[in-house]
Amino acid sequence: MADVRLIEVKEDILSDNKARAEEIRDLLRRNRVFLLNLMSSPGSGKTSLILRTIRAIGDAVRIGVIEGDIDSVVDAEKVSREGVPAVQLRTGGFCHLDASMIGMALDEMDLALLDLVVIENVGNLVCPAEFDTGAVRNAMILSVPEGDDKPLKYPLMFSTCDALVVNKMDYLAGSDFDMTAFHERVRALNPRIDIFEVSCKTGAGLDAWYKWLTGEVRAWKSN
Amino acid sequence: MADVRLIEVKEDILSDNKARAEEIRDLLRRNRVFLLNLMSSPGSGKTSLILRTIRAIGDAVRIGVIEGDIDSVVDAEKVSREGVPAVQLRTGGFCHLDASMIGMALDEMDLALLDLVVIENVGNLVCPAEFDTGAVRNAMILSVPEGDDKPLKYPLMFSTCDALVVNKMDYLAGSDFDMTAFHERVRALNPRIDIFEVSCKTGAGLDAWYKWLTGEVRAWKSN
Repeated sequence: MADVRLIEVKEDILSDNKARAEEIRDLLRRNRVFLLNLMSSPGSGKTSLILRTIRAIGDAVRIGVIEGDIDSVVDAEKVSREGVPAVQLRTGGFCHLDASMIGMALDEMDLALLDLVVIENVGNLVCPAEFDTGAVRNAMILSVPEGDDKPLKYPLMFSTCDALVVNKMDYLAGSDFDMTAFHERVRALNPRIDIFEVSCKTGAGLDAWYKWLTGEVRAWKSN
Repeated sequence: MADVRLIEVKEDILSDNKARAEEIRDLLRRNRVFLLNLMSSPGSGKTSLILRTIRAIGDAVRIGVIEGDIDSVVDAEKVSREGVPAVQLRTGGFCHLDASMIGMALDEMDLALLDLVVIENVGNLVCPAEFDTGAVRNAMILSVPEGDDKPLKYPLMFSTCDALVVNKMDYLAGSDFDMTAFHERVRALNPRIDIFEVSCKTGAGLDAWYKWLTGEVRAWKSN
């Protein structure tokens, strides 16, 4: 048998990315800007949550948005109509954002004018969870129609996040989503995660989310 | 409306990759080594075709293999049992190989002892087609059970390849695969592609593939 050489591509890429992410957190700390990485499947409500959040706390917290979700500028334009600076990372179908892409986007923003930058990550529960973007906190959305089994299928995503927004709670009554089982599955992976049950359509439950996010931003800025 | 800045992540990444791919082709030219990039869906028969090829032409053509297909060393070990040097790129679930990964793998090989290096790319008909690996020629496998509609769904892959191996022809009789329609769909995307109808199980049709590959290797080495 001839020799088999083994190259761990992913380890190299992830360790380079980690170093770049730490540089980004240093930059954010110096500028007192909080960076939130928001992840979910396509259609779970990332853009809706961002728009709701801008309208609710945008007077108290100066917000900017990095859009990586889709292959157009539609979401960035929606955000920008709220009067908020937006950078669109046109990923052209790539499955995740990494720290160097976020670094490029932050270079385009005037950090002195911002308290909070929200990354709307690529719609995907797999790859984005593997790449540290340099964010201070990671949040995910799981919408009720996606099903209560998702923590079993995407454990890394649920383990990586500091906050979980369960969106489309208005669908709960007509669904077979078992909220108790879902919470148990999430807590088994990540006992410390903060869970918010909301509807971006009706606005129900969002106050707790705004309070959590505002608190996190203030804590970071006062450090 | 606030300003929207647009960053074309993919263009930057692909243009960096293209430059690295050209460096690899220069390296191959200097060393008179031919590099074949073999792509397909999982289970189409990449490893089987490589093993068949080694057994058929391995005495005349000194072959090495770069394995990127799966998250283990199983395929590399199979190849290596044929007495052929193999490098395993453990991608850990990444969806494609790029030129810099292939450069890392070639650095581990003694090019002076090789005529042909075959890349077994990640099993996926989308992302691998977008990244120039530095290969001299691109080939793909489509197996009969995958269906005759695949050129419509994955046009870039069919457009990018110089050779198409239609594998598992032994399944054709019992299937609704329309070979005439398939050829028409492929030719509409890529009139110059060489098509080989084979069965890696029975060996049928493989002589034409061996002849094509050997001819390509010789032409490159005599340049």
